[in-house]
Amino acid sequence: MRSKATLLLGSALTLGVALPSLAADWQALPDQAPSPADNPTTKAKVQLGKTLFFDPRFSEHGTLSCNSCHNVMAGGDDNRPNSIGMHDARGGRSAPTVWNAAFYSVQFWDGRAATLEDQAKGPLVNPIEMGMGSLQDVLGRIDKIPGYKPLFEAAFPGEAQPISADNAAKAVAAFERTLITPNSPYDRYVKGNKKALTEQQVRGMKTFDSLGCTSCHSGANFSGPTLPIGTGFYMKFPTYPGSDYDAKYQLTADQGRFEATKQEADRNLWRVPTLRNIALTAPYISNGQVPTLDEAVRVMAKTQLNKDLTDAQAADLVAFLNALTGEFPVITMPRLPASPNMSVIPPVDPHLKEKPHG
Amino acid sequence: MRSKATLLLGSALTLGVALPSLAADWQALPDQAPSPADNPTTKAKVQLGKTLFFDPRFSEHGTLSCNSCHNVMAGGDDNRPNSIGMHDARGGRSAPTVWNAAFYSVQFWDGRAATLEDQAKGPLVNPIEMGMGSLQDVLGRIDKIPGYKPLFEAAFPGEAQPISADNAAKAVAAFERTLITPNSPYDRYVKGNKKALTEQQVRGMKTFDSLGCTSCHSGANFSGPTLPIGTGFYMKFPTYPGSDYDAKYQLTADQGRFEATKQEADRNLWRVPTLRNIALTAPYISNGQVPTLDEAVRVMAKTQLNKDLTDAQAADLVAFLNALTGEFPVITMPRLPASPNMSVIPPVDPHLKEKPHG
Repeated sequence: MRSKATLLLGSALTLGVALPSLAADWQALPDQAPSPADNPTTKAKVQLGKTLFFDPRFSEHGTLSCNSCHNVMAGGDDNRPNSIGMHDARGGRSAPTVWNAAFYSVQFWDGRAATLEDQAKGPLVNPIEMGMGSLQDVLGRIDKIPGYKPLFEAAFPGEAQPISADNAAKAVAAFERTLITPNSPYDRYVKGNKKALTEQQVRGMKTFDSLGCTSCHSGANFSGPTLPIGTGFYMKFPTYPGSDYDAKYQLTADQGRFEATKQEADRNLWRVPTLRNIALTAPYISNGQVPTLDEAVRVMAKTQLNKDLTDAQAADLVAFLNALTGEFPVITMPRLPASPNMSVIPPVDPHLKEKPHG
Repeated sequence: MRSKATLLLGSALTLGVALPSLAADWQALPDQAPSPADNPTTKAKVQLGKTLFFDPRFSEHGTLSCNSCHNVMAGGDDNRPNSIGMHDARGGRSAPTVWNAAFYSVQFWDGRAATLEDQAKGPLVNPIEMGMGSLQDVLGRIDKIPGYKPLFEAAFPGEAQPISADNAAKAVAAFERTLITPNSPYDRYVKGNKKALTEQQVRGMKTFDSLGCTSCHSGANFSGPTLPIGTGFYMKFPTYPGSDYDAKYQLTADQGRFEATKQEADRNLWRVPTLRNIALTAPYISNGQVPTLDEAVRVMAKTQLNKDLTDAQAADLVAFLNALTGEFPVITMPRLPASPNMSVIPPVDPHLKEKPHG
């Protein structure tokens, strides 16, 4: 006896329906993100995490907070090819959006952090990002800001030493787990509101599926299947090397996960990124060299599926991807606790280049 | 017949009360700031102004908003000696707080702008601040962000061309007029709550008056008398040159208002700054070279009043100044309107210094 799936497959083939459209499992975004057993999301933790996330004093010169490159007032990134860190330094990769990052099973473009907690510690001490000498230096500044003590105590009640790098990272991760954008037109459509998408967006959705985009960009977050935390969903990029795009956008200059692991099997592997709110996060691709979403869908179709899009296909896909822009929660600004009568930012700056009339 | 004032003066002298304490006119901060006839504060204007204030896309590299150096989540400045602009540039002056700036009759340290509206345009095109080539370039970016159009239309209803540099400046000024911090312990004290200040703070308040600090730092904003808009309240700094502080903190390197006017009479003249929330805005003095509030009161007493403070006097003054920290209104974060599918920040960057592993 044939299984139901085989029967369906048979019907699909009979009806001339392309296989991938059957395979697609369209999922709406959950309203809440899961939290790990050792870091349940609490209101006090979110409040502390939000405060830390917006506090620029944990960068060498006191000028960059997490939000500087992951701007939650916008698409959760900085709309730049790469971010600008201390001393005007630039990285080779584009800041990924922090919105819905809670749904990834690994963090960073190369998956080198398993959790949001691990990720949160990285940029603080990266010399081309926030540039702090060490996490101990960060804690030294927190210690000089009396108002942080009650926030840490409320977030981690009963702990003998609530102020620690691990707890700061837990709080930032807890805040990030609240950064969810449900109820996009796409979500409302798959929940049953057939008027939520325009005709062009529905066409784009079918094209997205039939071309094979869903083979990587699947699941509620369009970043692949749900895997255990620490297990990344990686793809080779470009899967079809040799197109003109390789040189035009330097697609192979950065070896992706290989740069982190030095394992040959990881060469040119990248975590499959979410497509949620993708319309807001130009420029595109891990190096931020592709300026528009129209160009990005063409680059991806060619490099990953070996397909040349027609103008109509590209336009439909872009229309569909615009339907992935969700609802952003209202966030109140945190009050950054004071270090009364002094600044925690070191006054001596060897890079001082003073000019008059500031 | 002697006037009531003279009678009171006589009584004061009889009682041995120092003259300045009688002269002091302690005023609470108003809950609202006045708005000019040609720019009445409206909800729609404040909303637009807040959005512009937090939008980093109106800086050359898309990295700095007004809030970067005038952080309203903190004391309205950046707790740095000077701010860091495009290309890692530094100015010679410390960012003044935006909180209660609405109560000044002139803007900038040297009063070179009459109004908040005029001031708002300056940093955008200052090459060592936000570094935009021109206000026209700013408008060019606004035009590429469709979501700004309805915000401008709502803020300036009925206008044929609502999007303009003047209107953007008006909106930012309208938002800034909401940045008021009433109900500090000092305010509650002068309104009649005698328990609002500690004993030390009351001592500091009397010292502040008897030493003569009130001769400059008077009025509700502690920045001098209320003068017509465009008429600044300036003082010479140092009034008593020659102390060791001159060299230690380079007090005469910047000639103040003279740098703007080139008038000899303006040499070393500075707008008298507010002392509200001064505990939050270290480091101090126009060049940000004085690290602590304790040191700042000593510097000011010596350079402006030719007095050497005792440790007790300095501590009392610092305690009093801490009573000028007010209540900060809750502000919700604006959603920055999107430029879907592209970035308005130019992708070509002649200063690109790429490094791997961003």
